[in-house]
Amino acid sequence: MIYLTRRERFNAAHQLVNPNWSEEENFKVYGKCSNPNWHGHNYELFVTIKGEINEKLGYVADLKSLSNIINEKVISKLDHKNINLEVSFMKGKVATTENLAISIWEVLQPYVNELGAELHKIRITETENNSVEYYGEK
Amino acid sequence: MIYLTRRERFNAAHQLVNPNWSEEENFKVYGKCSNPNWHGHNYELFVTIKGEINEKLGYVADLKSLSNIINEKVISKLDHKNINLEVSFMKGKVATTENLAISIWEVLQPYVNELGAELHKIRITETENNSVEYYGEK
Amino acid sequence: MIYLTRRERFNAAHQLVNPNWSEEENFKVYGKCSNPNWHGHNYELFVTIKGEINEKLGYVADLKSLSNIINEKVISKLDHKNINLEVSFMKGKVATTENLAISIWEVLQPYVNELGAELHKIRITETENNSVEYYGEK
Amino acid sequence: MIYLTRRERFNAAHQLVNPNWSEEENFKVYGKCSNPNWHGHNYELFVTIKGEINEKLGYVADLKSLSNIINEKVISKLDHKNINLEVSFMKGKVATTENLAISIWEVLQPYVNELGAELHKIRITETENNSVEYYGEK
Amino acid sequence: MIYLTRRERFNAAHQLVNPNWSEEENFKVYGKCSNPNWHGHNYELFVTIKGEINEKLGYVADLKSLSNIINEKVISKLDHKNINLEVSFMKGKVATTENLAISIWEVLQPYVNELGAELHKIRITETENNSVEYYGEK
Amino acid sequence: MIYLTRRERFNAAHQLVNPNWSEEENFKVYGKCSNPNWHGHNYELFVTIKGEINEKLGYVADLKSLSNIINEKVISKLDHKNINLEVSFMKGKVATTENLAISIWEVLQPYVNELGAELHKIRITETENNSVEYYGEK
Repeated sequence: MIYLTRRERFNAAHQLVNPNWSEEENFKVYGKCSNPNWHGHNYELFVTIKGEINEKLGYVADLKSLSNIINEKVISKLDHKNINLEVSFMKGKVATTENLAISIWEVLQPYVNELGAELHKIRITETENNSVEYYGEK
Repeated sequence: MIYLTRRERFNAAHQLVNPNWSEEENFKVYGKCSNPNWHGHNYELFVTIKGEINEKLGYVADLKSLSNIINEKVISKLDHKNINLEVSFMKGKVATTENLAISIWEVLQPYVNELGAELHKIRITETENNSVEYYGEK
Repeated sequence: MIYLTRRERFNAAHQLVNPNWSEEENFKVYGKCSNPNWHGHNYELFVTIKGEINEKLGYVADLKSLSNIINEKVISKLDHKNINLEVSFMKGKVATTENLAISIWEVLQPYVNELGAELHKIRITETENNSVEYYGEK
Repeated sequence: MIYLTRRERFNAAHQLVNPNWSEEENFKVYGKCSNPNWHGHNYELFVTIKGEINEKLGYVADLKSLSNIINEKVISKLDHKNINLEVSFMKGKVATTENLAISIWEVLQPYVNELGAELHKIRITETENNSVEYYGEK
Repeated sequence: MIYLTRRERFNAAHQLVNPNWSEEENFKVYGKCSNPNWHGHNYELFVTIKGEINEKLGYVADLKSLSNIINEKVISKLDHKNINLEVSFMKGKVATTENLAISIWEVLQPYVNELGAELHKIRITETENNSVEYYGEK
Repeated sequence: MIYLTRRERFNAAHQLVNPNWSEEENFKVYGKCSNPNWHGHNYELFVTIKGEINEKLGYVADLKSLSNIINEKVISKLDHKNINLEVSFMKGKVATTENLAISIWEVLQPYVNELGAELHKIRITETENNSVEYYGEK
């Protein structure tokens, strides 16, 4: 059983806002992150998959295929986008890194299985000081 | 003559757009960076000042004072803001990293002089792959 | 169940020394780290907490509150201090990164619980080559 | 129970190739990584060990001894070498990072036990985007 | 006058060798870097160009065009290659980072001029400890 | 003319203090950096030398020799030391990064000349946010 991690990056705008609250209430909860004019980040996404090594190939899954899946299913939807307005898998959710990690897990899991591996972890770094990890635990 | 560099950071949204052009023309020039729904970055700002060492103090200028000036005059205006809509010193300019560097130079120069030093360089890193430097050269 | 990590930093002096041993014995065990004139490090502290996402808020715990707790209870006691001489929660312990990690766990755990989350991991990086992790395991 | 990680580095050449396949078949599977003229990497190796803290010493195992073992048993065999041609513990295996991690685990485990600790994890970073972890799981 | 830097990366094998010397002489001069079985690195290439800002566009040169040129003319020739055997612009030169920097300068300079800018600096990082800069000075 | 940079590291304790002032005056000027119980840093030292490439060798100066000189003349004097108390070339100077850079320049310059190169720059990083550069300019 071996674990393989691929890093991909995306630059996006977002705003932390609960649409049921007033601008003042959102500011009270989310502070400057609630700015209605948006702000943004250079996000780093680390996708970790696990599985048995295929002895002939020497790996669990082809890294290029993994990278292609992440780019097609996740990065192309997020990069240079507005997370609140333009990302279908974030619709109706507060645009926190926590919700991003869970949503990306749900998007990627079936495709990782098709590669013959299991999704193990989604890690997202929002800034050099803040990051989130999700292991699919309910 | 010694050079001192202070790094500060800001997270902001922006859009590359020339307001005299149509959305299509802007897309042709700036590609996905012209997204009218915005995107954003974790910017790193490196401010380099130079001067003679004050022998009693062992430095050119107090680092804490330099950091305070950068935060008050620049970071507080940019962090968690929309560069196109909310930053007075970027009004009327395309929101490129190049223009940001020049504008920050103009904002900081008089305050660095008050510290008894000279502004030497503004460096801004937009992503791990892209950065810009300005030395006040016309 | 989601995991949230906050990084904070502190710069401190220390010395590896067992007070029951002579200077020679300490040098034999700890080498140059036993220098009685002290040396120091830029430590990085990564605090990981875990919990269920509050659906209204989109997060487990407010990152700003977590950062404030870490700064008030840990960083303000360690930053620009001498770990052997000035840090109450390290009294009577060898000033290793291992003991720092365990002591910081004990300091932070009750405050993380008050945030409605659980402390999951303390990671400390002493240099780019050396780091320690503690999960509260006895 | 505490976890201690030591980073060491090595620069090596390799080629991904299954010797039972033709050059064309290898290119189809491994792409440019199968270049018969070799390519190479700056590998980073992170060795994590775990154990109880020795109260008198304040640590699980002496970091210098751990570093010496990693350098003698692993780094000196890999640094500035050709992984396919010159590394005895990689003979007969495809020179993937996955196989490197497992082989290094097998080499280091007995020596870590002699230090009075347990080997917990081998992590190898091949590029800033690709890394592998092995925990000794079958 | 503004300076713009683009980072690109390549992973390659090489060997430091003067073909007029014996293997023993090469080892005496270049040490383990002369290994006839090759070794390799993750190189980072930083290309800095300079010029006046085009006021309508807000930049000196289009970053995407710069990146395309670097990839087409340099990275595609070096990535996953053997610098000694496969790189036409390194033929007949010792495969040091110094010679790489000068050769890349010569390859890129005319293309940077076509972008309406001037090449200012080539920086190559061979390891985290070693790097080289070339400014076109004779 | 090519520029070659070697990075070396040292971990040291220090205190910012002018011995002619009282503890209160020092605190007023240097803040927490004046702590009489010391604090410390992981310093990074970047030494840049320049010269003509020796065509037979492919470099200006042997990197291993440069590294040996830096380690023997500078790092061995600073690493795991107290800069105020134990470093002969810092005697009588305030232990700022600025003074460190100038002192290291003076120590290294003659040895770099013996290598057939010129010392170009000393850069020291005290924290990820603060750094200093010296070019030998009076």
